[in-house]
Amino acid sequence: MTNPLEPIGMAARKAAEILALADAAQKNAALDAIARALRARQADILVANKKDIAEAEKNGMEAAQIDRLALDEKRLDAIIASLSTIQKLPDPVGRLLDTVIRPNGLKIEKCAVPIGVIGIIFEARPNVAVDAAALCLKSGNACILRGGSDSWHSVSILTDILRAALAEAGLPQDAIQKLPSPDRALVGALLTLDKYVDVIVPRGGKSLTARVREESRIPVFSHLDGICHTYIDARADPAKAVAITVNAKMRRTSICGATECLLLHRNIAGSIGKDVIAALLKAGCEVRVPKSLLPLDRALKEAKESDYGQEFLAPVIAVALVDDVRGAVDFIHRHGSQHTDAIITEDKAAADYFLTHVNSAIALHNASTQFADGGELGKGAEIGIATGKLHARGPVGLEELTTHQYRVHGSGQIRP
Amino acid sequence: MTNPLEPIGMAARKAAEILALADAAQKNAALDAIARALRARQADILVANKKDIAEAEKNGMEAAQIDRLALDEKRLDAIIASLSTIQKLPDPVGRLLDTVIRPNGLKIEKCAVPIGVIGIIFEARPNVAVDAAALCLKSGNACILRGGSDSWHSVSILTDILRAALAEAGLPQDAIQKLPSPDRALVGALLTLDKYVDVIVPRGGKSLTARVREESRIPVFSHLDGICHTYIDARADPAKAVAITVNAKMRRTSICGATECLLLHRNIAGSIGKDVIAALLKAGCEVRVPKSLLPLDRALKEAKESDYGQEFLAPVIAVALVDDVRGAVDFIHRHGSQHTDAIITEDKAAADYFLTHVNSAIALHNASTQFADGGELGKGAEIGIATGKLHARGPVGLEELTTHQYRVHGSGQIRP
Repeated sequence: MTNPLEPIGMAARKAAEILALADAAQKNAALDAIARALRARQADILVANKKDIAEAEKNGMEAAQIDRLALDEKRLDAIIASLSTIQKLPDPVGRLLDTVIRPNGLKIEKCAVPIGVIGIIFEARPNVAVDAAALCLKSGNACILRGGSDSWHSVSILTDILRAALAEAGLPQDAIQKLPSPDRALVGALLTLDKYVDVIVPRGGKSLTARVREESRIPVFSHLDGICHTYIDARADPAKAVAITVNAKMRRTSICGATECLLLHRNIAGSIGKDVIAALLKAGCEVRVPKSLLPLDRALKEAKESDYGQEFLAPVIAVALVDDVRGAVDFIHRHGSQHTDAIITEDKAAADYFLTHVNSAIALHNASTQFADGGELGKGAEIGIATGKLHARGPVGLEELTTHQYRVHGSGQIRP
Repeated sequence: MTNPLEPIGMAARKAAEILALADAAQKNAALDAIARALRARQADILVANKKDIAEAEKNGMEAAQIDRLALDEKRLDAIIASLSTIQKLPDPVGRLLDTVIRPNGLKIEKCAVPIGVIGIIFEARPNVAVDAAALCLKSGNACILRGGSDSWHSVSILTDILRAALAEAGLPQDAIQKLPSPDRALVGALLTLDKYVDVIVPRGGKSLTARVREESRIPVFSHLDGICHTYIDARADPAKAVAITVNAKMRRTSICGATECLLLHRNIAGSIGKDVIAALLKAGCEVRVPKSLLPLDRALKEAKESDYGQEFLAPVIAVALVDDVRGAVDFIHRHGSQHTDAIITEDKAAADYFLTHVNSAIALHNASTQFADGGELGKGAEIGIATGKLHARGPVGLEELTTHQYRVHGSGQIRP
C-alpha cells in the first residue's frame, strides 16, 4: 500500500537537501520575506481566519478554543516579533562540534547538520504554523505542517505566504508544505511516512500527543505531562519560598512548567509551609493538603491520593509532606513526569543532592519551575519541550533541530 | 496484561539510579574485578561454552556460526584486553556540556548524565555480553542482556561473573541482568518494556536488527545496512585510489564499513579505474561492472541493476560509472544506507562538495571506509554504529550512551 503522502515526503526530502546547504544570510532573508508578507497580507489572513471562526462557531466550539484559533493584529504582531527573534539567533548548522586528530593523521570533524524533514502536528492555534516553520527554516530543515481541521483556512493562507517567501529568497518552496486536506486519516499517513520524515513534533493537548506517540513510526519530540514539583526544604529562605512557589503555580497555570505539587519538609510545614499556603490561597489557588495540615486554614481541602501525579493546569495545587530531600526525590520519581522540578533551600548539600539525583529534564534550585522554556533557558526560541531521554531533552531549540555528521579528512590512510 | 519482565525492569531502574552517581574510580574498580574474575574462572567459562557448542553441534549449526559462539583462552584474553581499554577512557558522566548565565542571574548548566537502562539483544557471540555490559557500566547505565538461546550457558556464567564483580566494587548487582530464560517471546517483552528501558541496542545480523526495529516500542540504536561506497574522482591520486579501494573492500569483507560499491568518474574508468579493478581482481574480489567496462578484463562479470544498493558482505563489489561528484552523491543517495561513504580525489572542491552534500553518518576523503568504527574515529570503544538521525549517529561510544540534564542555579528568581 502506498502512502498517500509519498509525493509530499519526496518533495520535502529534495527541498531539505537544498535547504541544508543554504547559508545564514539566505535563511534570514527568507525570514525577512515572511515578516514582510505577513504584514502586507494581514487583511487576507484575517479574512481567512474569520472563515475558520465562523465555521467553529457553527460547530459549537467552546469559547476558550475559539480564542486559541483567533488571529488579530496584535497576535500577528507577536508572530512577526518572534520571527525577528529567530532571525537574530546564530545559525545552528555547520557548527564544529568536535575535532579529533588520530595518530595515523586522520582528522575527524563532527559537524552539525540539519536533521532533514520535520513533521509538525498542531491543533487550533494558527501561529504555530509560522513559528514552527520559521524554526525549521533557520535550522535548515524542511517541514510538513498539519494544523487542526478547525484552522484549515488560516493555515492554508499562512503556508502560501511562507512558501512564497521561500521562493523570494531563492529557496525551495517545498521546504514548507502542508497536508493536502484536513482529513484526519492523513495524520496517520504522516506518522508512518518514515521513509521521508525524520522527526514528528506534536504541538497541542495531551490527547494529540498521546495519539502521536502511540501511532508514530517516527521519533517524536514531545512531553505528555508536565507534572512539576516544587520542594521546600527545611533550610529554605521563607521569602524565596513564598515568592517562588506562588510564581511557579500561579503565574500561568495552563503551561507545562506550572508547578502542580508542593512538597514540604515536615519540619517547616507549620512555619514556612503555612506562609506559602496562605499566599497561594490569597492568590486564588485551591490548595489540597494532607489531613494533618487541614487545621492551618479553613479554606484548605483534603488531598486524595489521586491528586499526586495530577496535572491540574488550573489554579489547584496538591501538597505533600516529606522527611527530607531524599524523600522529596523519591516522591518526584514516583509521581513526576521527568519534566521540571525545583528545590528551595539555602542548604548547598541538599540542593546538590536534589540536582544530581532527581531524574527531571530540568532541575532547578531556588527558581520558579515556570522557567521551563527554551527562551528562558537561553535557547532563544523553542519548538517545544521534550521529556524523552534521547537527542532533545528539555527545551527543543535550534541546536536540537540539528544532528551531526562525521567528516573524515585523510591523505590516503588505509586500515591495518 | 503485565509484562513478564516488569520485575527485571524495575530492578534495573533502581540499580541505574545508584550507578548513575558512581564515580569513575568505583566503576573502574568494577571493571578491574570483572577482568580478574574472568581470568580466575576461565576454566568454568570454557566448560559452559563447551555445553553450548555441544548443543549447537547436535542441532546442526553451521561451522561459521559455531565459530562465532566458541570461546577459548585467546578470545578471553581479547575480552579482558578490551575491558582495560574501556577502563582507560574518560568517564563520560558529569561532563559540563554547556553553561549559560542569563541576564536575570540564572545559571544554566547542561550536564551529561547516563541514559538509564539499556537493553542489549545479541546473537551467538558471547563476548558481546561482557563488552556491552562494560560500556554500559562505564557510562553509568544499567543493562539487560539477551543473548541468543545458543549461547545460553556461556552468557549465564558471564553474567554471574559480571554481577559478582559489581557487588565486589560496592555497586548494585542489578545494574547487569540477563533475561530469565532463552524463550524467544521474552525478546518481544523486552522490546515493549518502555516503562523501564530507555534504549535498545541490537548486536547481530540484519534479520535480528530488522525484527528489533519493527517490534520495538523503545528507541533503537542500530544500522540495518552498511551499503558503503567509494567514489574515485577524475582527479584522484592513482596510488591512493588503488590502496584505499582494495583496503575498503577486502581488509574484512564481513563488516558494515566494507565498501560494497565502487563509483568511477567516467573519465578515469579506463585508466585509474582499470588499475583499481585489476588490483581488486588480484586480491580475489569478484568485480561486477557495467557492460562498457567488460573489455577491461576477462575476469569481470556484468553488473545487474540489483547489484547496486546490495550489501554483499563478501569479496564481491559492484562498479558504476558517474559523470562527476554530483552524480556520485546522487547515486549514493539513491542506493546507499546513510552509513559510510568515501571520495578519493586531490581536488579540494570536489572533496568539499562530497563531504557537505552526501547524507552519510560518516563521510571520508582519501581514506578507507573500513575506518567506520568507534575506536578508529577516536571514541576508544563502541557499542555499535547507528544510522538513525537522532542522538547517536555513526559510532555509538561512551558519550553517546549519555544524555543530559539542565541544572538551573537560582537565587530566588521568579518569571515575570
